[in-house]
Amino acid sequence: MQSFYPPQRVLMGPGPSDVSSRVLMASARPTIGHLDPAFIALMEETKTALQRVFKAPDHACIPLPGPGTSGMEAAIANLLEPGDTAVVAINGVFGTRMADMAERQGAEVVRVEFPWGEPVDPQKVEAALWARGAKVLAFVHAETSTGAMTDPAPLCAVAREHGALSIVDCVTSLGGIDVDAAGWDADVLYSGTQKCLGAPPGLAPFAMGKRAMEAIKNRKTKSRNWLYDLSLLMSYWGGEGGRAYHHTAPINAIYGLHEALVSLFEEGLDNAIVRHRKNHEALAAGLATYGIEYQVAKPYRLPQLNAVKVPEGIDEAAVRQRMLDQFDLEIGGGLGPLKGQIWRIGLMGASSTPRHVRLCLTALGEALDHQGRKVSIVDALDAAEPLLG
Amino acid sequence: MQSFYPPQRVLMGPGPSDVSSRVLMASARPTIGHLDPAFIALMEETKTALQRVFKAPDHACIPLPGPGTSGMEAAIANLLEPGDTAVVAINGVFGTRMADMAERQGAEVVRVEFPWGEPVDPQKVEAALWARGAKVLAFVHAETSTGAMTDPAPLCAVAREHGALSIVDCVTSLGGIDVDAAGWDADVLYSGTQKCLGAPPGLAPFAMGKRAMEAIKNRKTKSRNWLYDLSLLMSYWGGEGGRAYHHTAPINAIYGLHEALVSLFEEGLDNAIVRHRKNHEALAAGLATYGIEYQVAKPYRLPQLNAVKVPEGIDEAAVRQRMLDQFDLEIGGGLGPLKGQIWRIGLMGASSTPRHVRLCLTALGEALDHQGRKVSIVDALDAAEPLLG
Repeated sequence: MQSFYPPQRVLMGPGPSDVSSRVLMASARPTIGHLDPAFIALMEETKTALQRVFKAPDHACIPLPGPGTSGMEAAIANLLEPGDTAVVAINGVFGTRMADMAERQGAEVVRVEFPWGEPVDPQKVEAALWARGAKVLAFVHAETSTGAMTDPAPLCAVAREHGALSIVDCVTSLGGIDVDAAGWDADVLYSGTQKCLGAPPGLAPFAMGKRAMEAIKNRKTKSRNWLYDLSLLMSYWGGEGGRAYHHTAPINAIYGLHEALVSLFEEGLDNAIVRHRKNHEALAAGLATYGIEYQVAKPYRLPQLNAVKVPEGIDEAAVRQRMLDQFDLEIGGGLGPLKGQIWRIGLMGASSTPRHVRLCLTALGEALDHQGRKVSIVDALDAAEPLLG
Repeated sequence: MQSFYPPQRVLMGPGPSDVSSRVLMASARPTIGHLDPAFIALMEETKTALQRVFKAPDHACIPLPGPGTSGMEAAIANLLEPGDTAVVAINGVFGTRMADMAERQGAEVVRVEFPWGEPVDPQKVEAALWARGAKVLAFVHAETSTGAMTDPAPLCAVAREHGALSIVDCVTSLGGIDVDAAGWDADVLYSGTQKCLGAPPGLAPFAMGKRAMEAIKNRKTKSRNWLYDLSLLMSYWGGEGGRAYHHTAPINAIYGLHEALVSLFEEGLDNAIVRHRKNHEALAAGLATYGIEYQVAKPYRLPQLNAVKVPEGIDEAAVRQRMLDQFDLEIGGGLGPLKGQIWRIGLMGASSTPRHVRLCLTALGEALDHQGRKVSIVDALDAAEPLLG
């Protein structure tokens, strides 16, 4: 067994995205104790920074010690208990996952389903809330499996009108498109670090509003999940009653997230969002010259996750393999019913740059050419160039 | 908000312990995708390495994406469901936590309690199994809160005789004292990375034997925990049916764990265990010259976690603060009923070296002197020197 030296890839799949050397180096700084005064100060700064990035000045914000999915698990295992009803909007893999989790909490789950690649329609969701009532309405802002964006504002409003708490999955949206917890008046939001925030995978930024905290206080039973019991976690991170031991925080991962947030604020959150949009438009213009179409209708396309249809006659897996072999460039395939049908091209965080757009168009053009499809890489690059961010 | 530069500490508390620059640098290598062929190869190597360190050639071994406590949560949330009974041996914080978790799974919990600082007595545990029967017997090998070691062999044997599955918490033991899953015939074992393995906190090495897998297959209900559902996790890590998407593995944390394991095997697992024992004996000899006594009787002392009584008239928190201020050296205080009564001095992983023993005796001697206790640092160092590992 020998030391592992990873290949130097360019990450343009559905995540993880490229991590800057600045963030990697920060995560390699010497480990200190989780009760060290210096670490406590870092925790406080990280909480405030997450409030800023979620636009959630009145939410309690912490990074959970686990993958993005731990945010989903925490939201659902804390807001739901047996006897509760949850309305879950499903338009891809992650809505499906939410419904599964909610059932494991003993909740009654009402699934409101939409075609994969389409956004969630608030009217259909409202009909379900009218019919049944619910404690929770859960949905995905940016469906990583399909590339479709759903506007959270009307869904959070509908939830409020019906006395339901909103859970908004922002795993792929945070830092890439506008996330506005206060503006939407959303109750619980969570994300991952390895998408548009540009840190390695392993933490779930989490935001919880006052109504959600109140609901957790009023539970009749303990959460079925000890590790992600938010009462315990919030207390570890320094709640009203002071700090109580719970677990050992993933110190070095938090160094990395902190540095990624410092870097994001240096650029400006709004500037980062404009950059994501521009690079998406540039990529789209280049892809159009190859005759490649998007899976999602234009108003609902995620700039950071470009789900595009594999042209007829093209071997989708062979294209991905060729791009990896020739250019060390990773893009993603489809999941579930979209497997073999689409590519998912990420332009997230440090992977949303002009260099990435140019490289992707080049590598994809070469791979298409290799399968006998005549394309002009120069034409694609020319189409993209004026739009780059 | 600015970049965070941690102080350079020497970590001799109950964990995290010092992480070598070699492991830190490994964890900062470029992030690659979790489906990358190179990462898949790393996953396979890591599984095999964990089988070696747990001495569990026939167990399925993976690192869970979460703190050490996620190992506990996974063990309990997968082996127990409503209607099951669990016997939990409690001799400190972590046994208490196991019982709480088991209740959250809807299980009937039989608590068998022991004084904090003493090991678990298999006869009392057997009596509970006789009286009630149980699906699971859970206990802690190395109680981090008290410094007491329990021999798992007789407990695993008792569990088997009564048809119960054994869950062995090895968070603080793995890599520091002998862990022998096959020899004990233990069913489920888990650990943390930030203790004797010398990697940053954030992963839980996990081992699951065939009887446990069978029990999970035969569950009547789904596990209440989706993220740590072992059927899904094992499939993600490449089970019999191939790989299925579940979450995004914490890539860089796994680089770090892998490098820590490479480094451990270079030294030799048995050599590392001898080193932990010798440095403990050296520290104990030095502490004796200060009149400092152990909380735990000699046969049950953990070499890697020295729980020692605070001498009368000494302000325990002030001593820790002084050691941190003057020598950047962190040791731990007590938890629960032992709060204010003991110090917990870790000699774990990269923190178990002669340099650490000498530094700790020096810093503690200086802090005691600062509180007016006359001690000779030179005498303490002389007592330790011939025993160092």
